[in-house]
Order: sequence, then C-alpha cells, then structure tokens
Amino acid sequence: MKISEIGEFGFIDEIKDNTLFNPDPVVIGIGDDGALYKTTQGMEQIAVIDTMVENSHFIIGRTGEWYDVGYKAVASNLSDIAAMGGIPTHIVLSTAFRPDMDVDDVIALYKGIKDICRTYKVNILGGDTVTSQEGAVITVAAFGEIEAGKALLRSGAQAGDVVAVSHTIGNSGAGLDVMLHGADGYDELKKAHRFPEPQIALGRLLVKHHCHSLNDISDGLASEANEIAKASGVRLVLQYEDLPISEELQRWAAASGTQAGKFVFTGGEDYELVFTMSSADFAQLQAEFPAVTTIGTVEAGPAEVVLCQGGKRELLPAAGWTHF
Amino acid sequence: MKISEIGEFGFIDEIKDNTLFNPDPVVIGIGDDGALYKTTQGMEQIAVIDTMVENSHFIIGRTGEWYDVGYKAVASNLSDIAAMGGIPTHIVLSTAFRPDMDVDDVIALYKGIKDICRTYKVNILGGDTVTSQEGAVITVAAFGEIEAGKALLRSGAQAGDVVAVSHTIGNSGAGLDVMLHGADGYDELKKAHRFPEPQIALGRLLVKHHCHSLNDISDGLASEANEIAKASGVRLVLQYEDLPISEELQRWAAASGTQAGKFVFTGGEDYELVFTMSSADFAQLQAEFPAVTTIGTVEAGPAEVVLCQGGKRELLPAAGWTHF
Repeated sequence: MKISEIGEFGFIDEIKDNTLFNPDPVVIGIGDDGALYKTTQGMEQIAVIDTMVENSHFIIGRTGEWYDVGYKAVASNLSDIAAMGGIPTHIVLSTAFRPDMDVDDVIALYKGIKDICRTYKVNILGGDTVTSQEGAVITVAAFGEIEAGKALLRSGAQAGDVVAVSHTIGNSGAGLDVMLHGADGYDELKKAHRFPEPQIALGRLLVKHHCHSLNDISDGLASEANEIAKASGVRLVLQYEDLPISEELQRWAAASGTQAGKFVFTGGEDYELVFTMSSADFAQLQAEFPAVTTIGTVEAGPAEVVLCQGGKRELLPAAGWTHF
Repeated sequence: MKISEIGEFGFIDEIKDNTLFNPDPVVIGIGDDGALYKTTQGMEQIAVIDTMVENSHFIIGRTGEWYDVGYKAVASNLSDIAAMGGIPTHIVLSTAFRPDMDVDDVIALYKGIKDICRTYKVNILGGDTVTSQEGAVITVAAFGEIEAGKALLRSGAQAGDVVAVSHTIGNSGAGLDVMLHGADGYDELKKAHRFPEPQIALGRLLVKHHCHSLNDISDGLASEANEIAKASGVRLVLQYEDLPISEELQRWAAASGTQAGKFVFTGGEDYELVFTMSSADFAQLQAEFPAVTTIGTVEAGPAEVVLCQGGKRELLPAAGWTHF
C-alpha cells in the first residue's frame, strides 16, 4: 500500500505507539501542537539537528535499507550529543516522502528510529510529515542534557595533551566503498556504515576524566582533527603508525587497491570520537574503557594538523589525505 | 553565484552572524557539535518541528519570494508554541538546496528567518545544510518555555465555554488563491499568506485569563475546531454569521465566484488562534486584546462540530465545508 492511500492520520496511527522510552520528564508527547517536557535542575540543554537525503546520503538497496536509514538518522544526532559529553533525552523529527512510497518501507524506517531510541532511552516527542516529489528526506532534531559548565567543546585542547580516538577509524567509509562495489563479505565494515554506534557512554567517561577537547568523526579524521586544532589554536601531531585500523579495512584497502589512510582520514560517518586530554587522565580513562587508543600529541603552535609517517612530517589539511 | 561555488564553509560564513537575539540563556551557539543553553527554573520546555517543501508549500515568484519562505518557516513553528501559550526561545534549522541555487536567494531566505527571529527575540542555535537534487526543503525545530502546569492544550474545552478566534479568519487561504490567479490588489490577503504573525502575545494572555483549550489555525478552522472537539470530548457549535471575515476576503470571494466560507473553514496557514474559555474570562481578555471575537459555544455532547447558518444546523466535518 502507498503512503498516499493511508493519509496523514493513518500515518500517525502507524507510528504513534512506542515513542516514549524514558517517560518521566515528558508532560505531553505526540498529539498536541507541540511536545512538553521537564529539564533537570543544574543541567544545561544541548540541541542538534541533522538531515539525510535519499540518493545523496543513502541509496536504498545499495548502501542500506529503510530500517538502517531511520537508525542512522538518529545515530548521527546522538553522536553530536556524545561529542559534547551529553546525555541524549528526546528527538523530534520531520520526514518527507514521495506519495507512492510503500507503507511497509515507512514502517521499517520508523522501526529503525524507534529501536535506536529504545537502546539509548531517548523519547520521540513529535514530528511532521510532508510530501516530497523526489526522494525521502529525514530530519532529526535531538536534545540532551549535561551538567552545567561541563560540556566538552572542540576548543579546549592544550599543549602536552595526547590525541586519542574511541575505536578503529575509517570502517564506515570503507564499508560504504565495499557496498558501492557490490563486494561480498566485510561484514564489520558494512555494519560500521549501516549501524554506527553513538559513543554516549564514552562521552560521559570523557567528562568524568577531564577531557580537554572533543569532536565526533562525521566527516573523516582529517577534517575533525583540524576542527579541534582551529578551535583550540594548537598543533595536533598525529602518528600514522599509531592509528587503529581494522584488519577488514586493511584487507579491503589491499583488495581494492586503495591506501588505508584514505578511509581513515576522509571516510565519513564513523561517529567515533577524537579527543585530547592529559596523559595521566588518559591512563585512568583507558582503565575503564580499554578500546581507546592514542594517535598523537598536542603542541603549542599554529592551528594545524601534522601527520608523521615513515619519518616524514607533513601538513594534514582538513580536506583530507593526499600527500603520501 | 551558485551555492555549490561557495561551499559549506562559505555558506556558514554568510549566515552565522546575527543569530542570537536573546543571548542570556545561550552558553554555546553555532560552531561546535551542538548548541548549549540554559532553561528557566519552574518552566517546562516546548518542542515543535515543521517542514516546508518547494513547489508543495510554496512556489517562488508565484506564491512568495525566498525571504517570505524563511519568515514563514519560522512563523509556523512559533505559531505552534503560541498555540500552547508558550514563549519561544530558540530554533535549530536544516536546509536542503539544489547545488545551482543562487547564493543571493539563500541569503534572502536567511534574512527572512533572522528578521522574524529578531522580532520575537528567538535565537538561532544551529543548523545543518545538505544538497537536494530537487527543490529546497526547509525544516525548523523551535523550542519554547511555559510556566510548569500552565500549557494550554486542545483537550480542556468545557460545556458552557465560548469559542473564539484571534482575528479575521481565512485571509491566508484567500491570499494564496489571489496569487495563484495572478490577481492584482488584495494586499491584506497576500500579506496574510506571505507574512503570518504568530500570536505569541495573545497566547500569553490566554494563559493569564484561564483559557480552557487552544489550537492554532494551520489547516483551516474546520479541522482545528474538530481537533478541539475530539481532544476535549465535547460539541463545538459555531455561528456562521459571527465569523469575522475581512472585507477583502468577501470581495475576493465575490470576484472569484467562491463562497467566503470555503476560505474560512478550509483555507490553511492563517496561524490565528481558536480557543475556548468561560464568557466571564473572555470579557476580561477582550478588554486587553480587543481583536478577539466569539464565534460559538461549547456544549456537552459527542465530539463534533456543528455549524449554524441561516437557521440550519449541520455537522462541520474536519475535512471542511461542503454542506452549504
């Protein structure tokens, strides 16, 4: 059945159940002009927004399915909240669909949205649905909270800090490349692209362990590291040999004749975290969250990122990795 | 110059100034992973979201210009906050543009967004911009506050209440019709469609004067009155002869061979308010805000809307006005 056949109210009936996964702060959910919720005393509020456009951010049947799109539209927003050290609380969302979109596909999209919201105890407080003549457009605005004064920004990196990342980097970009080539296998890479995990728990540990600067990796490590360098007015020096790169990524790089660094530095949508902190604090963090890896250090100097590889030391521009 | 030629960072540079019109509660605005703001103790938070799609919600050069689209994308959201009695505080927004969209048009759109935000002292806290292959898509999520427990819902209408509206109704739908016909004149109707005023001040007075139920008129009075009737479980009885209809609307109805009621009941995007309250409270309200008009009464009975016209009494369905 097509979405145009069930109409707006049919659509709302299909998706209105199972929207509150942490009902305590919610006064009014879906159904009135707006949603109404309470905030926690002593906490500051975080707001983020992100849009995914069909055939630009995803190609159904090739880079993912409708369920994934819903999951990822929320994941990218929760990642921005993780990148401030916050706790996500609610989302509102807007979807634009072609009139001939299949109702089952819409339900699959919303199942993806609801499943990740359930995992992170995030409420769906409301939404809007409109008709699009072209592909689907999904916009999610997410809210979160953080203890007043504790938000982790890009601007706090200090000379002497270590630079570190949450897990292996570049898997999502490599997974996209695998799917665009129609290659079998490489399930870890494909999963990284289709179901990225927002690093909420690590973000909270970074608050606890006095992290100085924090960013999530949505546009590739080169871009995100440069954002920290620019916002903080410091030089980040990264060691290529220290970068955590998965075995599958290395295998796909070899099979496809691509250098692994291309995926690490310019592959987007990892939704891992890159951060800087003192080495003593890093040791404490690592005891609680062993997956983290140092990849470099922070130096006083101009706002730039330098990459050391095989004894050579070259600038790493925000646009990516084209030097080696 | 095309938007694709200035790129994402050029775009952010063009629009990042003049975004905070009430800086006090803002900790971090545009520029980090998310925005950070403080809420007011004792207030509950309101969240709404709304999307406008080119050639579905607006046709540039025919039903409005880019400036208007920006203005109205915010107005429709602020109207939802007014419809709960709230004070708007911040927005975040997402825009999707074709790569060949003219930069001057983007700037005009943002000027419309900023001008209405300045008027209502609403901060622009952040956004996202993506590429669309088809027309522009503008999504605004707006936040507001209201004293805890004071939000005005659709569900509070009581038998014995008067039903009232904020100003004349139907002008926006009539203005759209005028523009689609390419007719000269009718400036009041065109203005109502292009620059609707969210009724924030009236919403606040409705809180003060113990309004029982409230809705904004985004989809026509028939739909909105039925929403109140359904949410409250009461019958709304409207008097056709009491409806405030502008002289210009009556003139356009006569000139175009349309019954005025079509615009009043089914014309959307008025962003006026329809509400119910005791007649004594209404008298107090009217002393402070003379534009309000009673258009009917609330009766105990099934959840329905009845329209009285010329001695006849007929059901007014949510879908509109087809009976007379």
